[in-house]
Amino acid sequence: MEAAPSNRWPDALSPLLRAIDPMPTLGLIEYQDAPPEVRAIYDDIMATRKTDWVNNFWKALAHDPAALKRAWETAKQVMGPGSLDPLTKEMIYLAISISNQCEYCIASHTAGARGKGMTDEQFKEMLAVVGFANANNRLVAGLRVEVDERFNAPA
Amino acid sequence: MEAAPSNRWPDALSPLLRAIDPMPTLGLIEYQDAPPEVRAIYDDIMATRKTDWVNNFWKALAHDPAALKRAWETAKQVMGPGSLDPLTKEMIYLAISISNQCEYCIASHTAGARGKGMTDEQFKEMLAVVGFANANNRLVAGLRVEVDERFNAPA
Amino acid sequence: MEAAPSNRWPDALSPLLRAIDPMPTLGLIEYQDAPPEVRAIYDDIMATRKTDWVNNFWKALAHDPAALKRAWETAKQVMGPGSLDPLTKEMIYLAISISNQCEYCIASHTAGARGKGMTDEQFKEMLAVVGFANANNRLVAGLRVEVDERFNAPA
Amino acid sequence: MEAAPSNRWPDALSPLLRAIDPMPTLGLIEYQDAPPEVRAIYDDIMATRKTDWVNNFWKALAHDPAALKRAWETAKQVMGPGSLDPLTKEMIYLAISISNQCEYCIASHTAGARGKGMTDEQFKEMLAVVGFANANNRLVAGLRVEVDERFNAPA
Amino acid sequence: MEAAPSNRWPDALSPLLRAIDPMPTLGLIEYQDAPPEVRAIYDDIMATRKTDWVNNFWKALAHDPAALKRAWETAKQVMGPGSLDPLTKEMIYLAISISNQCEYCIASHTAGARGKGMTDEQFKEMLAVVGFANANNRLVAGLRVEVDERFNAPA
Amino acid sequence: MEAAPSNRWPDALSPLLRAIDPMPTLGLIEYQDAPPEVRAIYDDIMATRKTDWVNNFWKALAHDPAALKRAWETAKQVMGPGSLDPLTKEMIYLAISISNQCEYCIASHTAGARGKGMTDEQFKEMLAVVGFANANNRLVAGLRVEVDERFNAPA
Repeated sequence: MEAAPSNRWPDALSPLLRAIDPMPTLGLIEYQDAPPEVRAIYDDIMATRKTDWVNNFWKALAHDPAALKRAWETAKQVMGPGSLDPLTKEMIYLAISISNQCEYCIASHTAGARGKGMTDEQFKEMLAVVGFANANNRLVAGLRVEVDERFNAPA
Repeated sequence: MEAAPSNRWPDALSPLLRAIDPMPTLGLIEYQDAPPEVRAIYDDIMATRKTDWVNNFWKALAHDPAALKRAWETAKQVMGPGSLDPLTKEMIYLAISISNQCEYCIASHTAGARGKGMTDEQFKEMLAVVGFANANNRLVAGLRVEVDERFNAPA
Repeated sequence: MEAAPSNRWPDALSPLLRAIDPMPTLGLIEYQDAPPEVRAIYDDIMATRKTDWVNNFWKALAHDPAALKRAWETAKQVMGPGSLDPLTKEMIYLAISISNQCEYCIASHTAGARGKGMTDEQFKEMLAVVGFANANNRLVAGLRVEVDERFNAPA
Repeated sequence: MEAAPSNRWPDALSPLLRAIDPMPTLGLIEYQDAPPEVRAIYDDIMATRKTDWVNNFWKALAHDPAALKRAWETAKQVMGPGSLDPLTKEMIYLAISISNQCEYCIASHTAGARGKGMTDEQFKEMLAVVGFANANNRLVAGLRVEVDERFNAPA
Repeated sequence: MEAAPSNRWPDALSPLLRAIDPMPTLGLIEYQDAPPEVRAIYDDIMATRKTDWVNNFWKALAHDPAALKRAWETAKQVMGPGSLDPLTKEMIYLAISISNQCEYCIASHTAGARGKGMTDEQFKEMLAVVGFANANNRLVAGLRVEVDERFNAPA
Repeated sequence: MEAAPSNRWPDALSPLLRAIDPMPTLGLIEYQDAPPEVRAIYDDIMATRKTDWVNNFWKALAHDPAALKRAWETAKQVMGPGSLDPLTKEMIYLAISISNQCEYCIASHTAGARGKGMTDEQFKEMLAVVGFANANNRLVAGLRVEVDERFNAPA
């Protein structure tokens, strides 16, 4: 597990850092400070992802072990291979995070998608679709377009 | 091209229909009433999609021929085959429309994705990712999680 | 003041209507049933707008007379003439409602903007900007573009 | 009233600070520079909240004294005790701000809710509801679920 | 369990109904048609809620039994009594659904909150907070207000 | 064209800067490194805007030259003079960006609107409308207000 970032900067910079880089509301729970049920999930995250670190989202969520467990169990069910491959799922997740302006999620799932093989071309094509959908969603609403009858027919 | 829906119901129902099924703000431009530059785009839509009808979005947007042309040209550039296949793009578009609660877009792009081969399994897996991303986008924001330094490093 | 819509359809249709056209959560308060402080605001709305009816938003909000008063007082302060003219303000309001997918607000403020002189050309240009901004808002987020230093300088 | 933050860092850091910590668009109006009607509101804010400082939101909004007055009067009407207690209202406000990804509002209303007694347990339970609602809002939209007739019946 | 709505209207109205009241994308799974693992969840929903029917959300989600199970298990963990009471949680859920313009969720959780005892006064106060937060979230963003240092300090 | 910001700070600060001021996902393409078709667009941006620099949005988007071209061509069609003047369009764009919480877009289009003559009074009036619309969009949704029949009538 990586060392806590608080040890990295000269002390003189700490008030500056606090101003621009606030502590998460509940703080982060590092591995060495985690209770056993949280450690078990951290271990499972690292084993599943074949990596030796846990990103901040999980360390912040760990203050609510039941929420941590729900989110991680859902991640394993929802983001793994199925009739859609994990990269496609990761790009859908990233697309939603971009649309919702979630800075953390954009950063972490851009890295996640790249880790699953997303090329720059795929990233750019996904992003173009996100922009186009967001524009058209509003054109439709503004024009008050009624749903075509055919789209309401049973499949 | 399909007949206008206004001819389909008994006259006695028309005030009811107007109450529940309003005219689009600018109305719809049917093929027979369209100026040549709009007809050319309708023809291209039908030819590209190998179909004999045009859905309401384009008929409503046709009141602004420059906007119609921009949207259709972008659709051809953005939604066609590339490093992502057209079905993946259609599902990303649908995912965004679901996230944005755009009823028309959900109806039309569910049909569009099915037309490109989306199975019920794929639909359900996409939807599960949309729900999960929307939840986690808020957990991250509420916890004020800071971006991990690794996610900011150059790729 | 217009008659309540519930009297307009044959009784046989009433279950259908209830299914598709639900009562607002708290119902609507018609003029004849309104307490004096609500009537005074209805009167002011009609006098200010030089019209003889009040639209459903105010009749629904009237269940909370303090909220009704706040909203109407704000409307008079915010939507009236100033350094921006009332039509520009109405179009900004409509643009936001379109972006937020608020069906009622789109319907009422399209009518409102037209009542203030919005032409079809102006509507279409406004809508094009709304679509473009919504697209670009996401392109920027997805690309993680940092704010140019010049944009942070004091004006 | 607290001193302006601009005096706190070494001069050598000021270009860095400007890059990462931009001035609000219109700047902040400090108490000593405020016109009487703004000072009166600052005084009321501090008296109502039993505190000796005013947070940046009000100092930025003070450039539009009518907007400042509207917002503060609404705050007093809407956020105070009623049939819901102030802490419940503060948590609803925080929940909306989290859902909307408003960083400033999350920071200020997390502090506000804690000041009104919000425990970490309450914070975590509120956040779990926010995540769950945001997920389900999309599942419903994606599945195109029709409203149950019973939910449309008069209460 | 309630009878399917498709039996309720004269046949002559069915094309009208289909136009205005489309089938959910995957349809609804009624109790008598549900596989055992879905029936078990329907039974648990009815037992937990002390009622004899299941609303459409669950019947639509039942096409993905794993998603149905996740959502229902989360509902029991997240919406039940804790350090916040179930009515407060229901109102936070409703507030988010209103903010996100999810029509189905607004209808179902207004009913849900009333079933848990929400009074009209509480509803109106909650709604006022939702409106106020949504307004202020944008005032803050537009003014580019920086987070007060105090709000970044550890609790 | 301005020099790249990476040269501006002492080397000792670079890890700090990387932590707080991450590289855009694909980086920025500076003029001197741009291929001819990108340079041509940069030239057109600077000529059209009568300026000697290009802001980061375009430099980040330039990794996808087709997307860059689409966005710039749309900008010229949509943001230029028409039946709405460029300042009104810029303020509508800014209003949407504020509503969507897009920090970059707020910064760049506040500067853009000011460059087109937006006064502080106009900014404040626009912002007040954005706040009011966002509040009312939710009041309407929460009250489940049905659209007035008159708003559905043909114009």
